[in-house]
Amino acid sequence: MTIDTLLSQLREVVGAEHVLTGTDVSARATHFWDPAPLTAAAIIRPANTAETSSVLKLCHAAGQSVVTHGGSTGLVEGHYSTLDDIVLSTERMNTIEAVDVTGRTLTVGAGAILQRVQQTAVEAGLQFGLDLGARGSCTIGGNISTNAGGLSVLRYGMTREQVLGLEVVQADGTILSSMNRMMKNNSGYDLKHLFIGSEGTLGVITRAVLRLRPATPAVDTALLAFDSFSQLTQTLSQLSHSLSGSLDAFEVIWQPFYHLNTNPEMEGTSTSPLPRDYALYAIVESRSVDAEQASATFEAAMEQALIAENISDAVIAQSERERENIWHIREHVDVAVQQDLVFVYDISLPIVDMQDYVTTIQAQLQSHWPQVVLYVYGHLADGNLHIMVIPSSESAPSDAQRLEWHSISNDIVYQPLQALGGSISAEHGIGLSKKSYLWMSRTAEEIALMQTLKGAMDPQNILNPGKIIS
Amino acid sequence: MTIDTLLSQLREVVGAEHVLTGTDVSARATHFWDPAPLTAAAIIRPANTAETSSVLKLCHAAGQSVVTHGGSTGLVEGHYSTLDDIVLSTERMNTIEAVDVTGRTLTVGAGAILQRVQQTAVEAGLQFGLDLGARGSCTIGGNISTNAGGLSVLRYGMTREQVLGLEVVQADGTILSSMNRMMKNNSGYDLKHLFIGSEGTLGVITRAVLRLRPATPAVDTALLAFDSFSQLTQTLSQLSHSLSGSLDAFEVIWQPFYHLNTNPEMEGTSTSPLPRDYALYAIVESRSVDAEQASATFEAAMEQALIAENISDAVIAQSERERENIWHIREHVDVAVQQDLVFVYDISLPIVDMQDYVTTIQAQLQSHWPQVVLYVYGHLADGNLHIMVIPSSESAPSDAQRLEWHSISNDIVYQPLQALGGSISAEHGIGLSKKSYLWMSRTAEEIALMQTLKGAMDPQNILNPGKIIS
Repeated sequence: MTIDTLLSQLREVVGAEHVLTGTDVSARATHFWDPAPLTAAAIIRPANTAETSSVLKLCHAAGQSVVTHGGSTGLVEGHYSTLDDIVLSTERMNTIEAVDVTGRTLTVGAGAILQRVQQTAVEAGLQFGLDLGARGSCTIGGNISTNAGGLSVLRYGMTREQVLGLEVVQADGTILSSMNRMMKNNSGYDLKHLFIGSEGTLGVITRAVLRLRPATPAVDTALLAFDSFSQLTQTLSQLSHSLSGSLDAFEVIWQPFYHLNTNPEMEGTSTSPLPRDYALYAIVESRSVDAEQASATFEAAMEQALIAENISDAVIAQSERERENIWHIREHVDVAVQQDLVFVYDISLPIVDMQDYVTTIQAQLQSHWPQVVLYVYGHLADGNLHIMVIPSSESAPSDAQRLEWHSISNDIVYQPLQALGGSISAEHGIGLSKKSYLWMSRTAEEIALMQTLKGAMDPQNILNPGKIIS
Repeated sequence: MTIDTLLSQLREVVGAEHVLTGTDVSARATHFWDPAPLTAAAIIRPANTAETSSVLKLCHAAGQSVVTHGGSTGLVEGHYSTLDDIVLSTERMNTIEAVDVTGRTLTVGAGAILQRVQQTAVEAGLQFGLDLGARGSCTIGGNISTNAGGLSVLRYGMTREQVLGLEVVQADGTILSSMNRMMKNNSGYDLKHLFIGSEGTLGVITRAVLRLRPATPAVDTALLAFDSFSQLTQTLSQLSHSLSGSLDAFEVIWQPFYHLNTNPEMEGTSTSPLPRDYALYAIVESRSVDAEQASATFEAAMEQALIAENISDAVIAQSERERENIWHIREHVDVAVQQDLVFVYDISLPIVDMQDYVTTIQAQLQSHWPQVVLYVYGHLADGNLHIMVIPSSESAPSDAQRLEWHSISNDIVYQPLQALGGSISAEHGIGLSKKSYLWMSRTAEEIALMQTLKGAMDPQNILNPGKIIS
C-alpha cells in the first residue's frame, strides 16, 4: 500500500483537517528546545480512543510505523520521527473528564497538559503528585509513557505511582481499557505497568485515571551549606527522620554549579544568601497543612542539624521572594546549557557512592580535557544526579571531534555505574539517545525479556520502532 | 520422563535431603489455616537462585508443573497443588543480605519471613512499609508475588511500592537479575512489575531489594462513631487533609461487626469504649516522629471534626492497652470466621458508592436468606471492604447446598462491582478461588493480554498452571 492510500483511509477516520502533511508538518518544531522542522510522513490527530484504534488498525494492516507525540519535551529523542513515520498526536484528546474528591482521583485524556491537571487538582482542594519544569508544555500521556520524575519524587514517587488506571490502544488497534479507580485492585496482572515508562513502544495511551493527594499549602524552604559529603548524608538521614511525612525536596548542588548560578558578575543569577566557598549546598523544602506548626518543626530540625555540626551554614527563606531566589540557584540551567559544547546526563547511583563517583569521573575527564568544567547537582535523596560536562577546548572542535568527545564523555560517566548498580537514566528514559548504552544498566537477560514482550505485543514493530530496544 | 527420573535429577541439584516426598510432603498442611495434608509429587528446596535455575531448567525440559511456596498463608488457593505438581519452597532462601541505611534499602532472600524483615528495618532505625496479620508466617517472596496489601497501604501503598529490585528465575531457568537499588531507574521497561502480583505464574522470585521508610515511633489512635455514611466520608476528607503526611489507618466497621466484637456476653471480645448503637465506627491512627507535637495535632483534628459534627462520638486511646482494645474490635475475626458456614470477601469500590452498595447486597442476600448476617469492615480509605456473609439457616445445609449458596452469595456480592468499576479482589489476589469471576473485574481484552504474556513467558505453562488465567 502506498502512503497516499493509507493517508486517504486515515482521513476518513479522523477527518481531512486532522491529517497534516507538507508544511503543516514542517511548521512544527522537532523538539520543544530545537526549532528544526519536524519530519514525518504525516501527523494524525485522532479525537478519541475509538479513532486511535481505527488509526492503529489501518497502520498495523499497512505495516506503517507510528510515533506518538505528547508535548515533545522529552530529553532522549524518544519522540523523534523520520519521513517514513506517521506521528500520532494526542493533542485533541485533552479532556478533563471527571474529578472524584472523596476517592481522590482525576480522569483525563492523555493530551491534557500537566499544568492543567495540576490546576484541576488544586481547584478540587487537592494536589497532583507530579511536577517538573516542562509543566506548561508536556502532556500527562507523555509523562506516563516516559514515567517522568521531577520535583516531587521524594514524597510521592515517580509518575508510575500517580497512575491508577489507563486506556491504551495496542499495536493492532485493540482497545485495552483498564480505567481502574481503585487504590487496591489485585485481580490478575497489573497491565498498566507495561505501558508506563515504555516510551510508546508497546501501546498508545489515550486516557488515564490519576491519583490525587491532599493539599499541603504550608511551605518551608532552607538553603544549607556543607564542608563535606558525609555531613550531607547525615543531614539527609536526620531530616528524613525529623521531617518524616512532610519532606518534599532535598536537592544538592556541588560548588562549581553553585558558583556559576550565584556569580554576581553575570546577569540572571541568584544572590547567594550564604558564603560561596562551601563544598556543597542543599535546598531543603517541607510542605504541610498547618503553617505555624510546620515552621516550628522545620526550624527545630535545622537547629538540631546545626548543633550536631551536620550543617556548616544555613538560611531559611523568610519570604516567597527569598524562596524563589534560592530555587533559582538550582533551576537556572540556561547559562550552562547554552555553552557551545555541553554533554548533559541524568544518572542514578547509591547515595553512599556519590562523592567517590564524582571525584573519579572528574579525574578521568580532566585527563582528557585539562580545562573541563563539571557541573553536578540533582535530586540527591532519590539517588539522582544531573551532570553537565563542558570540555571547553581553546579552539572550536570539528563535528567529528564533537562526536568523538561525546562518546569519550559518555564512557567516563556511564562506565562506573555498572559496578555500582546505578542507572544511565534515572528519569529521562532511553529513547534513541541512550539506546547504545542500555546494556550498561540492564543485563542481557533483561534486554531479551524486553524484546520478548515487544515481539508478543507489537509483532510488526510499528510502535515507535528503533527506540529503547527495538 | 517419569517423575522418578526427574526427582533423581533434582536430588543431584539440591541434595537428596532437599527433595521431600511421601510423608515428608503429607506432614505439611495444605494451608496455614487448613491442617489437611499437602498433596504434591515432591517438595524441592533450592538453596539459592542458581539452584532454582537448575530446578526450573529440569522441570521445563520435562514439562513438569511447579507451584512455588512461601508461607502458605494466601487466601485464594493461589498456592494449591496436586499430586501432579512439584512444590518449589523458598524456605532456605531466607538470608537478610544487606541493609543500606543511607539509601534506605534492604536486600533479602525471598524466603525471609515478613516479621524478620520488619525487625531488621527497625534495628537499622527505619521501618518497612508493609504489615499484615500473617507477618509471623508469610514470606517476603509471597508478599511480592501476591502484591500483598494489609495495614499500611493508606500511607505506603501496596507491596509493589515497597519493591525496588527483584531476582527472578523464568520458566526455562533463565535468571533475570534486576536487583535495582535506585529510587529512580528509567532505563527500559520496568520488568519487576510483571512478577509482582502475578502469583507465581510468570517466574519464581528468589531475591529482592526492598525500600525502607523513616521510623515513626509516635502513635495516636482514636475510635470514632458516626450516625451516617456521609459523616464518615467528610471525616475521611478532613483528616486526610489535617493529618496529611501522618495518617496511617482509617479502618471502618459497620454496626453488626462492631456489635459482635464488643459483645460483653462473649469471651475474647473488646470492651466498647463508646455506646454500641451508632451506625458506623472508624479506627483512625496517625504515626509520626515527635510524640508531643503529633498528639496535639491529632487531638486538634478530632476536636475540629466533632465541632463540625462530622463525628457523633469519639475516644482517643490514652494507653497502649486502650489502643490494643480498640484495634481488637477490628482484628478479632475468629468468632465470625468460625461460623459453620461463612463466605468471606475482599472487594474494592469507590468510597462514594459504598453505602448504597452495602444496602443493595444486604437486601438481595436477605431475599435468599431472611436471617442472613452481614459483617462489613475494612480499609475504607483505600476503597477496600472485607465482607462476611453468614446465611445462618435453621438446619445444616448439605454439601451441594453449600456450594450452591456460595455461588449465589458470590453473584450478589460481585455483580454490582462491575458497573461501579470495583474489584472482586482488592488485596488477596485471584488464585484458584476467584478465577471464574475474573471477567467481572477485567475486560476480555485485558484477560487476552494476560494470556499473551503468559504464553510468551511460560510457553509450556509449567509455572503455577491453572491459577488466575491459565
